[in-house]
Formats: sequence, C-alpha cells, structure tokens
Amino acid sequence: MSCFIYRRTINYYETDAMGVVHHTNYSRIFEEARVAFLKDRGLMHLHAPQGELTFAVLNMSNRFYKPAYFDDELEVWTQSRIEGVRIYFQYALYSPRMKQFLADGTTELIPLTAQFRPTKIPRELSIAYRQEPWSEVWPPPLL
Amino acid sequence: MSCFIYRRTINYYETDAMGVVHHTNYSRIFEEARVAFLKDRGLMHLHAPQGELTFAVLNMSNRFYKPAYFDDELEVWTQSRIEGVRIYFQYALYSPRMKQFLADGTTELIPLTAQFRPTKIPRELSIAYRQEPWSEVWPPPLL
Amino acid sequence: MSCFIYRRTINYYETDAMGVVHHTNYSRIFEEARVAFLKDRGLMHLHAPQGELTFAVLNMSNRFYKPAYFDDELEVWTQSRIEGVRIYFQYALYSPRMKQFLADGTTELIPLTAQFRPTKIPRELSIAYRQEPWSEVWPPPLL
Amino acid sequence: MSCFIYRRTINYYETDAMGVVHHTNYSRIFEEARVAFLKDRGLMHLHAPQGELTFAVLNMSNRFYKPAYFDDELEVWTQSRIEGVRIYFQYALYSPRMKQFLADGTTELIPLTAQFRPTKIPRELSIAYRQEPWSEVWPPPLL
Repeated sequence: MSCFIYRRTINYYETDAMGVVHHTNYSRIFEEARVAFLKDRGLMHLHAPQGELTFAVLNMSNRFYKPAYFDDELEVWTQSRIEGVRIYFQYALYSPRMKQFLADGTTELIPLTAQFRPTKIPRELSIAYRQEPWSEVWPPPLL
Repeated sequence: MSCFIYRRTINYYETDAMGVVHHTNYSRIFEEARVAFLKDRGLMHLHAPQGELTFAVLNMSNRFYKPAYFDDELEVWTQSRIEGVRIYFQYALYSPRMKQFLADGTTELIPLTAQFRPTKIPRELSIAYRQEPWSEVWPPPLL
Repeated sequence: MSCFIYRRTINYYETDAMGVVHHTNYSRIFEEARVAFLKDRGLMHLHAPQGELTFAVLNMSNRFYKPAYFDDELEVWTQSRIEGVRIYFQYALYSPRMKQFLADGTTELIPLTAQFRPTKIPRELSIAYRQEPWSEVWPPPLL
Repeated sequence: MSCFIYRRTINYYETDAMGVVHHTNYSRIFEEARVAFLKDRGLMHLHAPQGELTFAVLNMSNRFYKPAYFDDELEVWTQSRIEGVRIYFQYALYSPRMKQFLADGTTELIPLTAQFRPTKIPRELSIAYRQEPWSEVWPPPLL
C-alpha cells in the first residue's frame, strides 16, 4: 500500500490539560493533510484562492486509540476517492516512533462555487482521481 | 422532549474564509455543552480539578447541514446515557432564528483516573443517569 | 470605576499541557469581550453581518500574571476609547474567586468597509463613545 | 543579517470571515517558530517532555501590517536573547511572494521546573546563547 503521507509535528498549543493533543485538533491536522494531498496531486489550482472551488464538509468522524504528545513527529496516511458528487477522505495518524496508529478519521466533502453554491465535480478532478489507490481496509495493514 | 439545552453565541475567531463557522469548531462547542450538562446535573465535583475524574474521548462524529455565522445565537440540544463503561453524548445544534437544526454530533467517552488510567463509571454517576431522558430519534422532532 | 464586565468560563480545549489556559487563548477571550462590549453599548448593528463595518486589529499586547484553569469563572473588565481613526481597547482578566487580576491586554483597531478598506469612524460610534468612562490606571485599582 | 527562519504554510482553519488569517493565530505560529528555533539550536533536550524545563510566557505583543491568506507560504524570521532570567524572542513574518513583512511579534518567557516553578536559566542555555546574533532594528532591513 502506498498512500499519500503528510508529515506533521505536534505543537504545544495543540495539547490540553491531560498533557496530550486535544481531540478536536485531529480534524485540523486532517484538514492540513487534505490540502497537502490536493497539492501533491497538482490540484490546488482548482481551489480558492488560485481557482474557483472551495469544499464544504458534510460530515466527519474521528476515532482516538492512543494519545499524541507535544513535539511528536507524526504521519497522516491519507487516501481519497470520489463517490458521485462527493469527495471522500480517510486519514490514519501514524507514529513512526511507536510503530502504531494513534487515530483515524473520515471526511465527506462537496465542491462549492466561489459563491458557496454546490457544483459538479470538475472533470479535471475526476480524471486525476482515476489513478488514486484505495484500501478497503483502513487503517491499512502495517507490514 | 425536554433535553438539556446549552446556549452559545458564535465568536468571530470561529469563522473561516467561507464566512461561516469552521467545521472543526463544532466539536469544541459540543465539548462546552458536555461540561455544561455535567454542571447542570450537579456532577462537576467528580471532574478534575474539583474531583478525580477526567474523560477520554474514544470517538466522535459530526454532521453539518447548514452553515452557522458570526454572532448567531444557537442552542446545543444535548442528551447523554451510559452504556457499560462508556458515556455516550448526542448533540444537535439548533438555530432559534432559523427554526432549524444546523448540525449534530456524537461523542463516546470513558472515565479516567487522575493518572489518566481507565476506571469504572462512579456509582454516583450511574445513579444520576437513571433519570436521564433519551430520544432514539436524533435530532429530536421539532413540534 | 464601573467599566464593562464580560463573564466567561474557561473551556477544557483552552488548556494546555501545563494544565493552564494556553497564553494564545487570552486574545480570543478578549475578542469576545470586545464584541460583548459593542453589543452592550447597542453598536452591533454597525458591525457585519448586521451592518457594513468590520474591524481590523493593528496591534495587540498581553501580559500574563497568574495562570487560569479549566472551569474558572472569570471576568473581563473592559474599557474602550476612540483616538483619531483608531479604537483602543483595554482588558483586565479578573478572578472573583482569587480576588485578583490574572492577565491584561490591549488592542488597537480601525474600522473597515464591507470591502475591507479603511474607513472613518462612523458618527454614531463617536457619539456613543462620548459617554465612555476611561481609567488611566489599568488594571483599575481594586477597592 | 542571518537570523533563524521557520517556514510555515497558512492553514484554512486559521482564516476568518474577513478571508484572512485571524490575528490571534499569529502568536501560535510564533510559538511554533520558537520551538523550531530551540530545536535548530540543539536545545530541545532541555524542554519537556525530553527535559525538565517548560517556559512560561510573561507577555507578548503583535503588530499586523498586511493580511496573510490561506496557503500563503511564509517565513518567520526569529531572533532570541537572554536578559537576566528572561528569554526574549522577536519574530517577523515575511512573505517571499510579496517581498515584505506582514507582521511582527515579541515574547518574554521564564524557565519553569517540571513542577511549574520559576527556575534559573540553565548554564547550557546561557552558553548556547552566547553565539546568537541580535539585530536592534526589527524587523531587520531587507537588502
């Protein structure tokens, strides 16, 4: 399995009084991974401010297995596919130091015009996504 | 249906470049509702720093139907029940001005000791929860 | 001295791994106080989305004397005056429980049009500010 | 002038309804620069969780000249010096694309023990700081 990997170090302001990353910050880190994914796939020229599109999040879910700590150097393993008019993302937060996943998440989005109205998936996006790998098992098995 | 209601006005720093509340902030507002619920039920003396307990979030999910805006005065309708060792919360974000729900969410938590180790549901919590109403339909129907 | 007081309870997500409110959150609480001040003075109809104005922050400063903790019920003592084209705010975070100030802050803002261009102080704002008290000593002396 | 430079891309969740980075996020980006500086200077083994120290922020100030936008690739020019028991940081946020500074900031900190009590500047820190450059003019002149 060779999904997209976004690397991210935990900031002090992301911790809480339990000494760990506050659970509401994972979805922010996953948003960063989503943008990094689109950038890596050469699709950011479609996205505002370069392009006309933004994306509205319809729903999201997160599961937390193990805590993450200040200064942890983590990986967000990321995969994405298009289902009809929706773009579906899955993330798995991996700690290379601990050799395990700490959390995972999903997000469903729809594209919006510059006026924030729902719109079709642009043809260029559909074509780019044809080559995207997808693992039905998530987080993917660690070899 | 008479669930607990937490009132909350949207802050400017919670909006994003789409002009609406950024989706990752809902889970923070829901956390506030959770604390307000425990306070309303007279249970905060169990929670750190007054008591010994904190709660670890195992998972959460959010669905976003309609955007919320700066200065919107909203209600977080909140219900909670205990299932085994887990405390389960459901939230529905309601706009009195628009007379509709804007979003909903769920959280599953387990109690932790002061050393952040999993522990049993305290008896006082179980007893207090016996009287909690629970709607299988969520968000609850608007009459 | 009878300045405007905004009441605010500290949220769990505002704490950090030192167990106290992370210092970058004070300026967010002070922003809330600023909005509450404008609302209290009947001036929010000038502010977007109701009115045309928004405000750009030119600079801010914060001093931290004592830590604040989760669930602390605090007061933000707030005063504001207009100096030329600038609106100047001062805040002092007071703990009724500890009977002392924990932090203070200042912000300088200028009004912007709906197109985010600098504009004049609206006449209605100037007039409303004529009655505002102002303490040269800040935080104000505790009697 | 060759100060330390921390590179950072603006995240979507850091923008607000004006379409720009919300002013309270700059101090978070500056905190990241501070940690990156300590790491670059080989001093993070003194800092929790590796070491015993944390740092309490005594005060901070920020000035905002020009807005920053989603996906802007920015540089935080950073310098630091020790004054008595205090560690003093200055930051200047530079846009390579716009060839100008967008904001600046200062922070004063004191070291704390693992029990969050004030402590002396460790000898290793003092020695490492002997070689730190310092520009009295800040932001530094652009050549």
